[in-house]
This record gives sequence, C-alpha cells and structure tokens, in this order.
Amino acid sequence: MSENHDALGANSEAEGAVTRAQGFSACGFTAGIKESGLPDLALLVSDRPASTAAVYTQNQSTAAPVHISKAHTANGSLRAAVVNSGNANCATGEQGLADAREMTQLTASLIDCEADDVFVNSTGIIGHYLPMDLLRSAIPQLQPVPDGGADFARSIMTTDTFQKEAVATFEAHGVTYAVGGCAKGAGMIHPDMATMLSFFTTDAPVPADSLDACFRYAMDRSFNMVTIDGDTSTNDSAVILANGAAGGEPLTGKSLKAFDSALLAVSTALAKMMARDGEGATKRISITVSGTKTWEDARDVARTIAVSPLLKAALSKYDPNWGRILMAAGRAGVAYDLDRVRIWISDLCVFDGTATGVPEEEASAKTQGAEVFLRMDLGEGKAEATAWGCDLTEEYVRFNADYVT
Amino acid sequence: MSENHDALGANSEAEGAVTRAQGFSACGFTAGIKESGLPDLALLVSDRPASTAAVYTQNQSTAAPVHISKAHTANGSLRAAVVNSGNANCATGEQGLADAREMTQLTASLIDCEADDVFVNSTGIIGHYLPMDLLRSAIPQLQPVPDGGADFARSIMTTDTFQKEAVATFEAHGVTYAVGGCAKGAGMIHPDMATMLSFFTTDAPVPADSLDACFRYAMDRSFNMVTIDGDTSTNDSAVILANGAAGGEPLTGKSLKAFDSALLAVSTALAKMMARDGEGATKRISITVSGTKTWEDARDVARTIAVSPLLKAALSKYDPNWGRILMAAGRAGVAYDLDRVRIWISDLCVFDGTATGVPEEEASAKTQGAEVFLRMDLGEGKAEATAWGCDLTEEYVRFNADYVT
Repeated sequence: MSENHDALGANSEAEGAVTRAQGFSACGFTAGIKESGLPDLALLVSDRPASTAAVYTQNQSTAAPVHISKAHTANGSLRAAVVNSGNANCATGEQGLADAREMTQLTASLIDCEADDVFVNSTGIIGHYLPMDLLRSAIPQLQPVPDGGADFARSIMTTDTFQKEAVATFEAHGVTYAVGGCAKGAGMIHPDMATMLSFFTTDAPVPADSLDACFRYAMDRSFNMVTIDGDTSTNDSAVILANGAAGGEPLTGKSLKAFDSALLAVSTALAKMMARDGEGATKRISITVSGTKTWEDARDVARTIAVSPLLKAALSKYDPNWGRILMAAGRAGVAYDLDRVRIWISDLCVFDGTATGVPEEEASAKTQGAEVFLRMDLGEGKAEATAWGCDLTEEYVRFNADYVT
Repeated sequence: MSENHDALGANSEAEGAVTRAQGFSACGFTAGIKESGLPDLALLVSDRPASTAAVYTQNQSTAAPVHISKAHTANGSLRAAVVNSGNANCATGEQGLADAREMTQLTASLIDCEADDVFVNSTGIIGHYLPMDLLRSAIPQLQPVPDGGADFARSIMTTDTFQKEAVATFEAHGVTYAVGGCAKGAGMIHPDMATMLSFFTTDAPVPADSLDACFRYAMDRSFNMVTIDGDTSTNDSAVILANGAAGGEPLTGKSLKAFDSALLAVSTALAKMMARDGEGATKRISITVSGTKTWEDARDVARTIAVSPLLKAALSKYDPNWGRILMAAGRAGVAYDLDRVRIWISDLCVFDGTATGVPEEEASAKTQGAEVFLRMDLGEGKAEATAWGCDLTEEYVRFNADYVT
C-alpha cells in the first residue's frame, strides 16, 4: 500500500479509493442540507449484488438510519449505500425512521433494486428532522460514476479538515484485487465498535460469513484503536461491500488471509488519518503497550492512555509528562507491578521502575513532530497493541463550545 | 448543616471543620516542598485511638504512601494522619516506600504512638523522590492545636482555588456529635473509589465495622459521583477517624443512621465544592438521572454524561446542546428506549422522545448561572442518582499544558 501521506496524514495517491475496485460507482451532491453549501449527499453503488458486513455504534441513543441499516445488512447482501451529512437524523422518533426508510426507497428507485438492498446513514446535528423535500428532489438526480470515489469521500465529511481515503491491492490465484476505503471523523470518537462513518469496497469474491469475520478483526485492530475525545457517536457505522467483480473463485484459506491483510492495511491507514484529524489536534499520538499477558490487556491500557485529557493537554505543549502516562494507564483495569514498568518517549527510556533521569529538554524534543510515539512495557507477558489518539488543545474546546446545537 | 456557600461553593461557616469534633487537633506548615512557599505539610491528631475506615484510589499505578496507609488502616484504628502536598511520592520504587514509612515514624515519635497508627499520604508531582531532609526537619516541629483544622485544609491543597471544608452535627441519646471533613481537588478526578484526598473526623463512638459500611455508602453517593476530567489519581484516598471523645454508648440502629446522614451531608457538600473547583471550570454541572430500574443504572448514566468533553465544552459557552446529553448517555452501558426518554435543562423540558421545540435562547438562559441543572428520565423505572461535574474550558487545557512535569 502506498504510504505517501502529506503532513496532515492524507494520502493523495488513494484519491477515489472506494471506486478503485471494479464494478463500483459513486458520486457526491449538494442537496442543500448544509448551510455552507458544501456537498452533503453521497451515493455508492455496486453494479451487482455484493456480500456485505457491517459494524455499528454501540451507543444506546441510536440514530434512526442505524436501525434501518442494521435490518438491511442482516442478510449479508447490499447493492448501494446512501449517506447525507449536515443532519444526523437522531432523536427524531417515528418520523426519523420513516425518513431513513424513504431515503432507501428513493435510492432503490434510482438504481432499480429493492429498498432493503440499500444501506443508509446520516451524520451531523442531533435532534432535527431531515429536510425530506431537499432529499426527495436530490436523490433522483444522483449520477454515480466509476471515478466518483473522491466526490463520495468529500460529501460525507462533517468537521474533517481533509478527506480520508486509502487503497490496497492483493493477489490470489493470479487475479489482482483492490480494497478501498474512506471514512469521516473527527469528534465523538472512542473505541466502542465502529465509532466513525466509513465505507469499504472490494472486487474480490468474499462470501458474507468470511467477510464478517475479516471485517470485525480489522475494525478491532484499527478503528477501535482510535480515540479522539472519549465520546461516541449515535450514528457511526462501518460497512464493506465485496462484489466479486474482478472474478475468480470465492476466497478461502491463504487467499482469504491476503484479503485480510489488505483490509487491515486500509483500515489502519484510515484510523491513523482519523487520529491526525481529531478536532483541534496538532499532532497524532501513537501509543504502543507491550509486555502484557493478552492482546486485550494491551489494547485496554493503550486506549486508556490515549484518551487521558491530562496527557493530551501536556503533549500539546511538548511537555514529556510521563507521570501522566503512568496515571492514565492505572485506571485501565489491568493489573501490573509498577516496579517492572518501562516507558519510552520515542527511543528514550524515561521510566524503568523509577525515573531514569533523562533531562526534560531531551524528552521534550521527542514530542515536537507531527506524531509522538509513546511506548509502555508492563513486563508481564509478550502481547502488544497500538492505539492512536491526538493532543488536546484550546482549539478543541473553542471549536466544540461554538459548534451549533 | 449550614448551606451558606459563597459564589465558588465554599462554606465559610465550616472553617476548621476537621477539628470541630472533640479530641482532635491539627496544623499546617511550610516545609519548603512547594517552590511557591505555600504551606505543604499537614498533621491531624486524635487525642486517643480512633476507629477508622478508608477508601483508596483503584489506580494501578499506586503511589507509595497509599501502600503504607492501606497496611496501617487494615486493623481499623488510627491516631493521626500526616500529609504533604507538592510531591506525590509516586513512581518512586523502594525508596518511595521507605520515605512514606519514615514519615509515619517521624510523626509517631512526635505524638508518642506507633508508626502503624499513622495514616500517610502525599499529593503533587509524580516521579520525584520526596525531599526527606526537609521533612525530617519539619515534622518534629509540627504543633497540632484544637483550632488547627483550617490550616490543615489549606496545607493539603494543590491546584485548588479555595479550601473545601464542611461540618454537620447530629444528636443521639441526648449527646450532640460533630462530623467534619475537608478535601482537596482539583484535577484527575473521576469516579473510581475515592479519587481525591480527604479527611473526616467525628467525636461519635462508632465501631470500626459500622464505620466502614457507613463510610463506603457515603463515598459512593458523594465523592464517587464527581468527575472533573475522567482521569484518576495515583494517590487519592479518603479516611475517617471516629474517636468517641464526645462520650455516649457505641452508635447502633437509629443513632447510627443519624451519623450516616450527617456524614453523607458533609461528604456531599465537599463533593459539590470539588466539582465547582474543577481545573479551569466556570460552573458546576449537576446531572440527575431518574426513571431507571436500579440506582447503579442511574449512577452509570449520570457519571457518563458528567464526563463528556463535548457536553462540557458546549455548556462553557451557554450552548444548551441536549443532543450531546443523549449522545453521552448512550455509551453508559445501560439499555433504554430513546422514545421514552425525557430531558430537562433546569425546569425546561427540551426533549420528550423528540425535540419539544423550546427556543434555543430560552434553554441557553438556563445555563448561565454558577450551576447548571440537567435531568434525564429514562422512563424505565423509579431509581435515580445525581452526579456532579464542571464545564470544560480553554483554561483547563492551558492550565494542564503548562503544569510542570
């Protein structure tokens, strides 16, 4: 996979990622939902039925379209995904459910399929009814095209400052397959199953049950390792469509593993872009926890460190405050012996049971880049996991204090 | 109990609270640990053995003095508590344990008791050894006096902007007893057992086992309902000494209940002061969740709302963003039906299954005072609980970015 990220973490070579796989088309549109006049409606279509897997927010205040999409993905098959930004269609009761259902019906009429072959979602402000007059006029005008992936990615953005797209290819039985994905951030992100909106496509023939297992594995190790602020969204979902358009036999065994690796590479790249584009963030924080008995222990400690506002605030001003790493790790619910713990900031070991005496200026210098690498070893075992977060700045507070209800 | 709080939530009539009960003396001292020259050493003494109960931080990166105090409170009896501020004696290995132990020995020599009758704690910066030369010189000079409670309360402060003291009295069998308490905040506060440093005294005769049950109940409903930032401290502890100096029979039954109520009143008053004095906070946020099946459900939802940075940021600028209340509540792990949920900002019902259409300016006006009252009813049962938090301001970030390692 290409790793040519710019300073913000975006990858221009991945532009149009969700339509790189064969048999997919997409588009974006300005329906007028956003007051800004920016694109706010997006459609992704497979030219044939695609097997599908999806994960949804665990938030109990679930938005209307999530209820509809859960029902529509239950049979493991989809033809299309329709999404609006600018309005979350959440906390909108019966009317909200009817509106989400109507979005799938309008889309089904356009591309000639059943309404339950359409995934639907919304992202934006909570508690307002969708402007259905705008959507009834806009959806029939949508014209998905084979190079429409970038427009799709742009149209699902809310508070994002750049598009998040990633693509990878893999070979199996002499066929080259593509896996593409795009996602939107940038707040209300915390590990609790798919806490952002994202779309993946592949032209590989992956049966729905294998797809589900691969997708959950990739989500657990990428999106579910990102935290921006500890809050979780009412709407966010991740969905993948595998339409088999590149031909070949259904993937199993080694070829399924190759798909798995490509999918994890794409989802990890998107997860890292998400962390880099956290609201108000000036840098990504990468936290590897090693030396635990299980992956789950390493995951829990890494995610707990990543969400600590005290650590995030310190790093925003280059303060290498490793005491806050210890403090944050301590509430993860994982037992360890402080005497055996070691902590590194980049390649500097700053704690080894007690302070190692690294001068503060030296450690501070390691926190100045666009990414800070922290590592904590618990000395209890051999498992490890990495989580990604971002610093906490005054801009985050300003931004979220002023965001319109 | 007196409720004459000033604008910041302090109660001047409670000054010297921990020495209001008979048989207690206390003092504060400037040992020179804090560069600021502010008092940084405090001693509380009972003139006779007191039964005791204590709760400690659940943080795995436990500070040295917490290990020592756990051992010293295990037998349910204490004579004194010695505390320094300005240095947490955390992440200091074997040396840290030896230093904490020596603090109890120095105190025991001063007041003529055993070292294991002394509770010890430290609060301040993590990862530095205690300046034992200063403490060896200072502790023998301490002169606890019967009206030293206010000096004690002042000397345990770190980032607090005001002293936190509260006092209540109750009667049993014709005897009037006092319960006093003081606490320090103001960051790294989140519900996970005793996440602040606090000291309670009473001259009532309460046996250690009853005292333990009463104390845990009061902590669960007061200190464990306060969150400032979701982080939890490595050092914090709450301890109570009951010395029976006011005489009378050991409390049981109705008289124990009277003690219980007085203790809960004192700890709740301190908890609310803590929330009001959160780092960078301009207001207290009081969140009552009702209509749940169990108190635990109400507690979990209330605490999860209280810690949401998105809601806290919105309220800092008077944005009555109830969508963020729904969003935050949704990740508490408590099941509910969004259609049955109601939300109030002060006395205004803003959500009743769907938006009620209250004009934003009207709701915003209810968020302008020194305390914002939020209520969420889940419509599932009859239990309720209240949590206290504070708003999130740019000042919190500035403060914590600049705090010295």
